Amino acid sequence: MAEAKKLSGAGLRGQSAGETALCTVGQTGAGLTYRGYDIKELADKAQFEEVAYLLLYGKLPNQGELTAYKARLKGMRSLPDALKTVLEQIPADAHPMDVMRTGCSMLGNLETEADFSEQHDHIDRMLAVFPGMINYWYNFSHNGKRINVETDADSIGEQFLWTLHDKKPEPLHVDVMHASLILYAEHEFNASTFTARVCASTLSDIHSCVTAAIGSLRGPLHGGANEAAMAMIENWRSADEAEAEIMGMLARKDKIMGFGHAIYRESDPRNAIIKEWSEKLSAQVGDEYLYAVSERVEAVMWREKKLFCNADFFHASAYNFMGIPTELFTPIFVCSRAAGWTAHVMEQRANNRIIRPSADYSGPESAEWIDIADRP
Amino acid sequence: MAEAKKLSGAGLRGQSAGETALCTVGQTGAGLTYRGYDIKELADKAQFEEVAYLLLYGKLPNQGELTAYKARLKGMRSLPDALKTVLEQIPADAHPMDVMRTGCSMLGNLETEADFSEQHDHIDRMLAVFPGMINYWYNFSHNGKRINVETDADSIGEQFLWTLHDKKPEPLHVDVMHASLILYAEHEFNASTFTARVCASTLSDIHSCVTAAIGSLRGPLHGGANEAAMAMIENWRSADEAEAEIMGMLARKDKIMGFGHAIYRESDPRNAIIKEWSEKLSAQVGDEYLYAVSERVEAVMWREKKLFCNADFFHASAYNFMGIPTELFTPIFVCSRAAGWTAHVMEQRANNRIIRPSADYSGPESAEWIDIADRP
Repeated sequence: MAEAKKLSGAGLRGQSAGETALCTVGQTGAGLTYRGYDIKELADKAQFEEVAYLLLYGKLPNQGELTAYKARLKGMRSLPDALKTVLEQIPADAHPMDVMRTGCSMLGNLETEADFSEQHDHIDRMLAVFPGMINYWYNFSHNGKRINVETDADSIGEQFLWTLHDKKPEPLHVDVMHASLILYAEHEFNASTFTARVCASTLSDIHSCVTAAIGSLRGPLHGGANEAAMAMIENWRSADEAEAEIMGMLARKDKIMGFGHAIYRESDPRNAIIKEWSEKLSAQVGDEYLYAVSERVEAVMWREKKLFCNADFFHASAYNFMGIPTELFTPIFVCSRAAGWTAHVMEQRANNRIIRPSADYSGPESAEWIDIADRP
Repeated sequence: MAEAKKLSGAGLRGQSAGETALCTVGQTGAGLTYRGYDIKELADKAQFEEVAYLLLYGKLPNQGELTAYKARLKGMRSLPDALKTVLEQIPADAHPMDVMRTGCSMLGNLETEADFSEQHDHIDRMLAVFPGMINYWYNFSHNGKRINVETDADSIGEQFLWTLHDKKPEPLHVDVMHASLILYAEHEFNASTFTARVCASTLSDIHSCVTAAIGSLRGPLHGGANEAAMAMIENWRSADEAEAEIMGMLARKDKIMGFGHAIYRESDPRNAIIKEWSEKLSAQVGDEYLYAVSERVEAVMWREKKLFCNADFFHASAYNFMGIPTELFTPIFVCSRAAGWTAHVMEQRANNRIIRPSADYSGPESAEWIDIADRP
């Protein structure tokens, strides 16, 4: 074997692991684009299904295409009986990301991708089924209720809220879900997407790729920052209390989730968008402190550490205002990022080489066999 | 963002993605070592449980440690009822690797790794439960039989054969399983192991890491080469027929599985070992052509293409002689490589940085928003 190239920096940071036409992250220190479109414009003007279509089919749909695509997704929401039985076996105290991972994997047993020519069908099916899948489990395990997942919801975001609360959500909340799902849909070679691409590079099936990606997103260094932010801010009842607590955390060098980013240097372009929605929701629900707490935490972190909010921080309050249990925040991330993951899988398949790096060996040069009777 | 380093070669080939003390592959063009021990010595002298212990606990066990370790694994074979119910939902025509992936993921719901201090318990449990898990599904879905997985088998290899055939296997077959599981246990930063490490780098749980790795191993460019080799050689009834067919395949430039390797240049050190076992099994079962066919294919591939057999080729006939259905070959690989995967996960956790490479952007520089009514 040729000597492996030795590169600075662990975690492949700053090293190119391939090509993508899907996304740029932080190219000017701040920006985020999907297929060249600025995230601000997409989140402001598009529905999530338009963005999923852009990522998966390569262009923004016209009205006829969007209508047809949404109708197609709406027709793909049913849960197979065997999948329902599996979800009913999972206890209420399971990690909801384990439920997502298992549900996706089980779907692959029942509706296996036999050939890559079927990839779009399976991808659309996953996007359509995931919101109802997690909420079927949630409602069954927590409330003993078998919900109907074949709702009249017009969109994936509405479907999430409808199946969670088992009733039609308010229009403002549906708008927030569109924006939120758009913000989380794609982010270049992040760890879960890279996991999906490594899996795809063995020419494995689409359910394996997405199942693997869910497993990576589950990690606290990746998904889950909005859950951690919520767990922090929900303790505080005023902006002043939040400031005092944050100053204490900073003095103790506690980790504060929802700030800074591995790639962005100046700001996270997604923050301003979700912050605005959080403010609107705060007014709607008559919130008296959570938004104020969040704003103060943002101000203190900038004043003290020059750390900016990333996409996750104001997602915490926004989701909370819509009555979403904190433990379901990361599964929503799955419902969104599944579009990005699967677009990357298709891109990897179209120009594939198996991803098989080398390693620097740090073990013993050679070890001498000792028969078991003589071992110390 | 700083400009990403541009490296030659797709698939991270020849690029170091981290450190490992577990394994060297092909350092002299041919060799394979686990923690410094030569694979030939391990396969010749050790039991699989000794090698798993070496990988997972850092040293070869003495007799007392090995006895205790095997007793511990033997005590961890039972399948939770909820997992059995899940396995019974999976149809007979499912891909057995999808069953492994789903079973592993489901186990993570029922026995979640709450803290990394528990990692050894969950790893040992997976090693103990996987053989019975796949064979419980196989026997239920194919034969309508609910087997007892809590057998008296002395080892993981014996447990696999025992639960597959629902009876105690012959001693020769147990010896072959030890050698086979040792040969497949570990192979540095191959794609499935790298998948497990990327997942581990988000600090996700052990079941997510192994589930993800199973998904990668499922791909035909990774696991499954022994299944493909079997599907080829089982068609032929004599060495002469095999030679004629192989010559035709070479002339048509058909892909012939089980030969050559991405890293090894001269030979695969695992081949001679499994070939010898295949020969012994051939004599035992009174095989009249499969071993002869295999030997002739090996000779022709070397004569015509200077391509050597890799670990997979003689595994095909060896497994076949033991009555193992071809579709269960890759799940056996899982039962073995799970030791390597999880040793890598522990190594990644002990010195972690999230694995998040960059990408070369190949898409449009910027795209102008067009309102949906105006789109072509």
